[in-house]
Parts: sequence; structure tokens; C-alpha cells
Amino acid sequence: MKNRKFVLARRPDGIPRREDFRLETEELPGIGEGQLLVRNQFLSVDPGMRAALDDVVSYTQPVPLGGVIPCATVGVVEASNNPKFKEGDFVAAGFGWQEYGVSDGRGIRIVPEGPLSPSTAIGVMGIPGLTAYFGLLSVGRLGEGDTVLVTSAAGAVGTAVAQIAALKGAKVVGVAGGAEKCQWLRDEIGVARVIDYRAVSDLAAAIAEAAPDGIDVLFDNVGNAMIDLTLPMMRQGGRVVVCGQIADYNIPASQKHGILNTSAFISKRITMRGFVAFDYAREFRTAWADMTGWILEEKLKYREDISEGFETLPEAFIGLFGGKNFGRKLILAF
Amino acid sequence: MKNRKFVLARRPDGIPRREDFRLETEELPGIGEGQLLVRNQFLSVDPGMRAALDDVVSYTQPVPLGGVIPCATVGVVEASNNPKFKEGDFVAAGFGWQEYGVSDGRGIRIVPEGPLSPSTAIGVMGIPGLTAYFGLLSVGRLGEGDTVLVTSAAGAVGTAVAQIAALKGAKVVGVAGGAEKCQWLRDEIGVARVIDYRAVSDLAAAIAEAAPDGIDVLFDNVGNAMIDLTLPMMRQGGRVVVCGQIADYNIPASQKHGILNTSAFISKRITMRGFVAFDYAREFRTAWADMTGWILEEKLKYREDISEGFETLPEAFIGLFGGKNFGRKLILAF
Repeated sequence: MKNRKFVLARRPDGIPRREDFRLETEELPGIGEGQLLVRNQFLSVDPGMRAALDDVVSYTQPVPLGGVIPCATVGVVEASNNPKFKEGDFVAAGFGWQEYGVSDGRGIRIVPEGPLSPSTAIGVMGIPGLTAYFGLLSVGRLGEGDTVLVTSAAGAVGTAVAQIAALKGAKVVGVAGGAEKCQWLRDEIGVARVIDYRAVSDLAAAIAEAAPDGIDVLFDNVGNAMIDLTLPMMRQGGRVVVCGQIADYNIPASQKHGILNTSAFISKRITMRGFVAFDYAREFRTAWADMTGWILEEKLKYREDISEGFETLPEAFIGLFGGKNFGRKLILAF
Repeated sequence: MKNRKFVLARRPDGIPRREDFRLETEELPGIGEGQLLVRNQFLSVDPGMRAALDDVVSYTQPVPLGGVIPCATVGVVEASNNPKFKEGDFVAAGFGWQEYGVSDGRGIRIVPEGPLSPSTAIGVMGIPGLTAYFGLLSVGRLGEGDTVLVTSAAGAVGTAVAQIAALKGAKVVGVAGGAEKCQWLRDEIGVARVIDYRAVSDLAAAIAEAAPDGIDVLFDNVGNAMIDLTLPMMRQGGRVVVCGQIADYNIPASQKHGILNTSAFISKRITMRGFVAFDYAREFRTAWADMTGWILEEKLKYREDISEGFETLPEAFIGLFGGKNFGRKLILAF
């Protein structure tokens, strides 16, 4: 039985290129005692995964050269010697960029049957949605009536942030790139104020106009330049949620935009904090319950941007850094 | 009756100069109903006051041109029509750089008689000490066994931070400038590990050597460059306490060192927060009780660097930015 997988061929220099990844085919052994075999149907590409391709320990260990590129997966159990899983179960896992995964079941979660597509287990109900939920409510300590600025608002995390903020009574300003995404945020997602950063000459002025009383929570998925620009507009006691840094992942630290406007930290009593969703793993059940309810009430909408074909993975990943995805980027492998 | 005062003659460009301040003499009217007249004995110069000299709203309102330079004062009540104060009382106030102050008593606190010099009411028992106390314990959420890096460790705030951290069971690394200050920190204050930033060629390497397991709390009085340098050495869940920015007060934002190493915010779950001591005004009594006890037990030592003569105020203030003070800088006016 054959398994195809993408491995790290070389460490990317800046924005990843197709040649940084190598497609390999291997023979899959039969499963042993307690193991299960999963065929991955949906595979994710995530901007945050870029960090693991450098030879630096970050919030993940670096991927070794020749190692499978990590990602979240949803698949179907094809064979199981593990009593917790049976053939045909949908399971959410992190098998990485490969067609099949073999596991002893640890860290693997059965996707409950229900009205939602199994793909949501690694989208709005997976790390992107949980990141939005805990980043906004726990890290950002959202209060009713707060003004929230969310960047990459049309991304998987940002869209969830915008909606959770609105349903909690916050005023929301979203920043996204391109007319199509901005229109969708306005018309479909119901974000009151949307800024197309590609269409404005002065982003700071556009934000100041959209949030004339200042910003209580900046939920940032972009990076240093965005944070620096927003700091002078923060209100007393403001919170900066450092969630993602898509503009900075491909740049060496020395070439990044540095955060300069730090006097606001004292004058405005700002708190800036970084996190990953797994920090809140013990509270995931509460979040899932809340989010399922919101989805069924149509208060929490989501969009999946699905490419077909396992071999499109590298291209889909690279496209993230050009803002080519529109919604949660997934690959449908079969 | 004559009152001498220093007013803002022009807004400083960079490091303040003597000509930015003008000495004026005015006639003092008699005190009215409910008022008191105070002769200021001790006056402070504080690095943080630099921000108020620019025409920008920060954590204080800008000083108007021709306005008295603000500062903390301790003085003696010379006359009182206010039943809460009597002649001869020592009072802590904020009359600014002037020989006398007239007030209705609001915001003025009688300095209790006791073993401590009245000057401590605007030093270790005043804003510098309270800043250390709340910055370390409330903002920095100091835990036992934490490693604390404190910058400007020989300054009024830093010295208190180093000692409060040590008496709470933390490991302390202090950074200061010059052999004399460093020796004093080691020998008199008992800071275990002291780094003379002027004497080391690689400050980051010196910190890494002094704190090989990383830093839980950076209590920073210096500014962006110091924070940027320390971020990669922070431990999981580390806290950056933004207390002061002496290296940055005299530089326009565009010329500052920007904070670049922000990927550590996510990978290390760092929290960075700014504050001023007044945020904790409702808890001052607890802090004063704790600090009085520590001072009497000789666990909290302090050093005052007192210039004699009211007219030395501008020079003393300017000297702060060259690190010329050694301990809490005060002026003894009579």
C-alpha cells in the first residue's frame, strides 16, 4: 500500500517556494496492535506553520529536513486495531501533508456526526475557531461595548473574531485585502466597518475614521507594522492580542518593521500578549458548545476555500502569503 | 512674600538643556479660607517627567509654556486655614519646581512622624517605591523562584524592585551603568548578579550568562532596545513590565530602536504591560505598611542623592539622562 507525502526538501529563504517541498512515495506497513490507519480527506495549510520550517525553536519544534510538513487533518478510519475507533469514523488529527496516517490514537479526536461538514473540525471548530474564541475572550478580555480591530479579517481566524466580537456586543472594525473580501465581510458576515488596506493610501487614518473613539482590543494576525500603527489609537487599558504575524514570518528579524510607538504602553496602560489556542485546551469543550450553538443560529458563519488534489498542497500554502486564499484554506485529497 | 519657581521656557529638543527652563520670582498672596501655605524642602526630578515637556498628551497633560515644571515635593506647613493641617506638619504634595505652594489641601498627604526621613515620602515610600511594588507584584505577577531582570537597577525604582524581588524569593539580575553603582548594588543592596552595561561588549550575552535558564520578569526602566534584546531570553509565560523608557524619552519615535523580536510573544506566551503607580492608588496603604516593615528590617534599603540649593533643579534633571544620579535624586531647597 502506497502513501504519498510532502517533506521539507530545504529550508525556505523568505516566502516558501515549490522547490522547498518534495513529494515522496513510501510503502505503508500494516497496522499493529492498538493502531489505526486513517486516510486523510481534508488537509490544512496554515500561515503559522511557516515558523516550523526555519531551523529555530518557536512554538513548534522545527521540521527536520526530509520530515513531513505538519498540518491539521480530517480523515476516515480505514482500519483499526484500537477499540476507541472503528472503520468509517471521521477523525481530526495532525498527520501532516500525507495521504495516510498511522497512529496509536493519541491526540486523535472523533469528529461527531451532526449538521456540520467534517472539514469544520479543522476550521471553524478547530484551531482557527478556537484561536479566535480564546484570543478574543480570554487573552483580549473582551468587554461589552468595546471596539475591536481585527486584521486579516477575512481569514479563518479573523472572520470568527469579527463575529464573536459582534455577538458579544462589541463594535467591530475589520481590515482585509481586496474588494471582494471586504464586500463579503460587509454583506455576508455583517462586519459594520471594513477597511480594504490595499485601497487606502493612509491605513492609520482609515482606522481612526472607522474607530474615532479608539480601540480597546487589537486582534492582530499581521505583525509588527500593524501593531505599531495601531498603538497610538488604543484606548486606556487596551489589549493587543498577538495571534499571528503573517507579514513577518518570511522576513528575518533584522529586516522587520520594529514596534516604535511603545510610549503608549505606559500612557494607555496597554497589555500585549501572545498565545496559541492549545494554551486553553482544558476549556475546548466549552468553546465547542458555544460555537456549535452560534453556527446553528447563523451568528457564526465561516467560509472554506477548498483546493482539490493532494498535490496542490505546496501551492496552496505559498498562496497564503500573497493573500490568495479567501476563507479557511483546505485541500480535499480524495 | 516672594516665591521662586522654574517654568518651561521652551520645549526641549532631545535631552533638555538649561535654557529650556526659566527662573521666575513672583509675589505670593496671603492664603484664603481653607488654604495652607507650604514651604517645599525636598523637590524631585524624575525621568518620566520628560514626557510632559513635549506638546503631546501622554500619561500626564503637557506642561504649558510658562507653566511650573511638575514634581513631587515634601515641605513644611508654614501657615494653615485648613483644619486638617497645622503649622509644622510635613506634607507630601506635587507643587512642582517652586519654593512655596498654596493649596486647599486636596491631594496633599501628611507625612507621618517616625523613623524615616520626610524625604522618603517622595522616594522609597513615594511614587518610586510604589512603582516598584505594584509593577513587580501586580503587573509583573512575581512568583517565587522567578528570575527577574531589572534595568536601571541602581535607580530609585530599580533598587526597590531588586530588593522586593529578592525578599519574595526571586533570583535577581540587575543592570546598571558604571562600576561604582554596580559595586554598591552587589555589596550594599545584595543583588546577586549585577551587570555593568558600560563595561560589557555584548549585553545580551552577559544577561544570558547571568540568567542561563531565562527570564520570567523583565522590569524595564530603559526602553525599546532593552526590551528587544531581552525578549528572546524570556521564559514561557514571561512578563515584560514597561515601567520607564529613559533611553527613549529624548528621541522622536521615528529614531527609536524598534522592537523586532516579537515572535517571542507567541512562542513564549509573553505578556507586556505598561502602568503607572497611581493605577493602584487604592492599595497604597497596604504597600506602605509592607514597605515600612521591610525598611525597618533592613530588607529594603534605599539611597538618596541630594543636591543642595533650589537653583540646582534643572541641572539635576538634565543629569538624570546621563546617568549622573546615584539613587533617588532630590533637591534640598532649604
